Amino acid sequence: MQVYVHRVHYYETDKMGCVHHSNHIRWMEEARVAFLEELGVSFRTMEARGIYSPVVGVECRYRHPAYFDEEIQILVRISSFETLRLKIAYEMTRVSDGELIATGSSEHCFTDLTGRPIALKKTHPDIDAVLRAQLPLSCSDAQCAPQCSSAQNKK
Amino acid sequence: MQVYVHRVHYYETDKMGCVHHSNHIRWMEEARVAFLEELGVSFRTMEARGIYSPVVGVECRYRHPAYFDEEIQILVRISSFETLRLKIAYEMTRVSDGELIATGSSEHCFTDLTGRPIALKKTHPDIDAVLRAQLPLSCSDAQCAPQCSSAQNKK
Amino acid sequence: MQVYVHRVHYYETDKMGCVHHSNHIRWMEEARVAFLEELGVSFRTMEARGIYSPVVGVECRYRHPAYFDEEIQILVRISSFETLRLKIAYEMTRVSDGELIATGSSEHCFTDLTGRPIALKKTHPDIDAVLRAQLPLSCSDAQCAPQCSSAQNKK
Amino acid sequence: MQVYVHRVHYYETDKMGCVHHSNHIRWMEEARVAFLEELGVSFRTMEARGIYSPVVGVECRYRHPAYFDEEIQILVRISSFETLRLKIAYEMTRVSDGELIATGSSEHCFTDLTGRPIALKKTHPDIDAVLRAQLPLSCSDAQCAPQCSSAQNKK
Repeated sequence: MQVYVHRVHYYETDKMGCVHHSNHIRWMEEARVAFLEELGVSFRTMEARGIYSPVVGVECRYRHPAYFDEEIQILVRISSFETLRLKIAYEMTRVSDGELIATGSSEHCFTDLTGRPIALKKTHPDIDAVLRAQLPLSCSDAQCAPQCSSAQNKK
Repeated sequence: MQVYVHRVHYYETDKMGCVHHSNHIRWMEEARVAFLEELGVSFRTMEARGIYSPVVGVECRYRHPAYFDEEIQILVRISSFETLRLKIAYEMTRVSDGELIATGSSEHCFTDLTGRPIALKKTHPDIDAVLRAQLPLSCSDAQCAPQCSSAQNKK
Repeated sequence: MQVYVHRVHYYETDKMGCVHHSNHIRWMEEARVAFLEELGVSFRTMEARGIYSPVVGVECRYRHPAYFDEEIQILVRISSFETLRLKIAYEMTRVSDGELIATGSSEHCFTDLTGRPIALKKTHPDIDAVLRAQLPLSCSDAQCAPQCSSAQNKK
Repeated sequence: MQVYVHRVHYYETDKMGCVHHSNHIRWMEEARVAFLEELGVSFRTMEARGIYSPVVGVECRYRHPAYFDEEIQILVRISSFETLRLKIAYEMTRVSDGELIATGSSEHCFTDLTGRPIALKKTHPDIDAVLRAQLPLSCSDAQCAPQCSSAQNKK
């Protein structure tokens, strides 16, 4: 799990006074980029090795508005990884008081640079292994537990 | 049901060569704005009458990439409307060949301008009635039927 | 000269209540795309023929705020075209009352798909001719005159 | 002068493979926000004291493309401040090799929260003084000199 912090930009607000809901989808991407980089399988690495990971689905639940200049912490974790589908979950909280701003998820497949689906397990087993190692197996781990249970509640 | 057409802008593409997935969330809003205006309950009308309808959730499934300059037709319909929740469904297809680009949904609550939740049925029964009349009751209607069934397939 | 109309989206507003100033730069691109298409030298045509036209400079002066749902008309014209530089000018007015919202300009060079600068006159003389024909030569023309003079005032 | 670093997001790229030019305008705002905060006259402080500072003009020159995941350093400085106009200059360079990506400027007026222009000197002399103290008076200063001269070259 990785923590990414995004500070809300003025241009991300809308006339309602808070962040427009399309930006949370972008924050999820920012956090995912940082997360995968920390794992050693960054977008750049993957593209250099001939892999794209298009988004095949996103979902976001908005709990509290986020406001200009607030720092939003985004927790990222892999929630499932089947042969052709990677699912990543996000939890966005306001740094100042821990308020839950939003939860979300994104689903990804993997393709070669021409867009043909690939199974990482066959084509890039090392990357497959890195991602698989992030699956929430160690939920008995004390620090992980709260996330796991909150993740279960989400379903 | 209303049909809204969005032409893909250059600035909506990303380095993968097609539309970045965050833009579909914005297109859903564009189509929703046009849909509600056609019903006579536009954002402007609602805000003038003291109503905000914040997004409490969004979800989008991406079927095919959309490319620069393509015209994307967005079908909008109300899929459910309970006391405090309005759910709207979207179907995005490429105009040139009818290819399904994405399906999505958004959920909304209603608040006064200070952010307090309101039940339209009590505070603005006329607006409540307009929205309620859009619920997919008349699925025996010939023109509606294909949409309804495609909506059922989605679930 | 071509007229392009952009309707202001909710997501283009910011917490000040009106359109965020970065969007006018995007509207200029939208209008430029439509303008070049009308001339028969669309982005798609140019890219298909191996030409990119990167933006090397932009400039925008904001006269009046634009608000959600307003229709903004954007006049586009080529203001200068030297061997390696194309300069395009924009005038954005509110459709409802003709209020001038903003004026802007963009400068472009031309490159091949690898990013090397090219002189259209040599590589694609037909496209060069189409653009050159748009230069404001016929300023004695009655309809053009107001634009020309307003353009001069801008300087 | 303040240094702000922006890391290029995937969603900021376009199909040409590099950052879309509208984003540099947003980066200038990000850097301006950080700069004014460091001076103790943040957007939030100003708005809390009844001041908006709308953008009345922007300008940007693009020297080299910026690519996904690159760190871009943005130098900000006040280039002029007359009674009703504040002009801020920006220099964007790639952190990895110091390559100049773009230079830009923005012009601002000040208004009260209803949009009426105000002269900070009269209404908020303390804020006026803070901004005025940033004017490039000390150009004999060794560290400042290169910026000043590069700024002069820009004109």
